[in-house]
Amino acid sequence: MSNPARLIGVGVGPGDPELMTLKAVRALREADVIAHFAKAGRAGNARSIAGAHMRAGAVELPLRYPVTTEIPTSDPAYTRAIDAFFDASAATVAGHLDEGRTVAVLSEGDPLFYGSYMHLHFRLSHRYPTEVIPGVTSLSGCWSAAGLPLAKGEDVLSVVPGTVDEEALRARLAGPDAIAVIKVGRNLAKIRRAVADSGRLDGAVYVERGTMADAKIARLADKPDDAAPYFAVVLVPAREHGS
Amino acid sequence: MSNPARLIGVGVGPGDPELMTLKAVRALREADVIAHFAKAGRAGNARSIAGAHMRAGAVELPLRYPVTTEIPTSDPAYTRAIDAFFDASAATVAGHLDEGRTVAVLSEGDPLFYGSYMHLHFRLSHRYPTEVIPGVTSLSGCWSAAGLPLAKGEDVLSVVPGTVDEEALRARLAGPDAIAVIKVGRNLAKIRRAVADSGRLDGAVYVERGTMADAKIARLADKPDDAAPYFAVVLVPAREHGS
Repeated sequence: MSNPARLIGVGVGPGDPELMTLKAVRALREADVIAHFAKAGRAGNARSIAGAHMRAGAVELPLRYPVTTEIPTSDPAYTRAIDAFFDASAATVAGHLDEGRTVAVLSEGDPLFYGSYMHLHFRLSHRYPTEVIPGVTSLSGCWSAAGLPLAKGEDVLSVVPGTVDEEALRARLAGPDAIAVIKVGRNLAKIRRAVADSGRLDGAVYVERGTMADAKIARLADKPDDAAPYFAVVLVPAREHGS
Repeated sequence: MSNPARLIGVGVGPGDPELMTLKAVRALREADVIAHFAKAGRAGNARSIAGAHMRAGAVELPLRYPVTTEIPTSDPAYTRAIDAFFDASAATVAGHLDEGRTVAVLSEGDPLFYGSYMHLHFRLSHRYPTEVIPGVTSLSGCWSAAGLPLAKGEDVLSVVPGTVDEEALRARLAGPDAIAVIKVGRNLAKIRRAVADSGRLDGAVYVERGTMADAKIARLADKPDDAAPYFAVVLVPAREHGS
């Protein structure tokens, strides 16, 4: 067999298709099946990014999230629905692997950095030969677009999901670390309050769609509203030593 | 002018030349001058990675670190020597920009993630049109090679330089965060003690040259000695909630 069954997590980078790696492009050309997560009725970011590099006739396997908009995420029913979805997705991918196919799973950013691919990795990597092709994270895309070095030298950089509670966020901001808040979405009002109260609002920067044509980059203090997409980030540089 | 003066920080990724982005490859082909930091007598990692993608006849500008091996890094004379070097490097790059050339500065990993490029960025980006092309970090390269998801969901991931003092390292490890210790180098014995005392040695993984042919990946508990290159990392997954 020249092309044995293999699971490949493929990082496609933060948005600009030119920020895909040469290795990711090659993996898409060689894969038998290209899987990608998507919400019902939408193409999915990773699929949009990879589109230009997929060969004609590639077998696509869209893995469509269940519609859960009527279930609060704190409800155990939500967790059950999502877990069942990832179990079923893993079983579908395993079916292709059992037939000797190479399955590439598209992953926005880097597959092992807060990505949905991880749910398949946990379920399948101990059972099948698995490779992970790292990608440029959305975080690198955002701070590069903003031209903002966050952490240097002995600075600590903490990556904090915007979904953590306000008290935890305040505790982080009280220290000296550079803070990158990811998955901002509906949490921007809370994040802004916590950043302002920590005295670090002046240096904080808001970035959405950092590497895309419609990127928005603003001082957090200047952003006029609290609307933000899920993949927006808030960047708070490390406190200067002694300040 | 079709190719106006421009400073470009080019992330070349963690080591495997195939992990360069399409955009980085294009930038190298289009640049008038390609600058790279290197120690005296050595090619430098970034230059080695980019080598396969540089066009014949490109003008190279090696920026050679001063020899400081006889000065302790805590000595103000060390800081002065390094600062003078970055000032002189920035002046040399500015000379090319003043002549209307595009200068690409190679940067291992991602230019704004603890990279030497930042020293030029701080000195020049307010004076010249500047672009930063993000790259795959060595950290993503290492956890991908190890197949180890560090942080997911609401986990916080803290990136901690191995040069911080042992007490600070212990304080970090006492919490629940996923911890990625970068710039391990001579600090491995200290890092190992702190990880062991935090009760997290079992899950910790040591990775050096993650995406290279001579990669070394081991459970930290199994690594038999404390020798490590500067770019090695120690990965400590987030504590499971409730543990």
